[in-house]
Amino acid sequence: MKARVEVMLKAGVLDPQGEAVRAALGSLGFAGVNGVRQGKVIELDLAETDAASAEATVRQMCEKLLANTVIESYRISLS
Amino acid sequence: MKARVEVMLKAGVLDPQGEAVRAALGSLGFAGVNGVRQGKVIELDLAETDAASAEATVRQMCEKLLANTVIESYRISLS
Repeated sequence: MKARVEVMLKAGVLDPQGEAVRAALGSLGFAGVNGVRQGKVIELDLAETDAASAEATVRQMCEKLLANTVIESYRISLS
Repeated sequence: MKARVEVMLKAGVLDPQGEAVRAALGSLGFAGVNGVRQGKVIELDLAETDAASAEATVRQMCEKLLANTVIESYRISLS
């Protein structure tokens, strides 16, 4: 089954990548952009077919590798 | 209004970042990971309040800056 993990910096954590995008959009003439946050999306193709067990595995992957839980939050969705 | 843009490499384009994640998951003992693709998610906070016009603007942003449409596809969602 397929799993999607979205990793974003937590609110309050400085996001220089997002800031750079915001500045670049401004210099391209796009006005009215109040804020930009940039994160990662990771799509996993898993051999596991049971949803509950796949979600538990993906949660472990996030805690151990995919997200830095000190500064990042993650969201898992399965399909 | 808020817009989310998801930028992924097109199918068939080599994804070394995703491959690195797959290898790292394997070396951490996670078996059964058939494939990993990594992309970007960009959250925009826009002053625009009209959904149609916001989507048109965000589409322009994607074409001009956020995605490299030769190798990447993007998906826009508004909320």
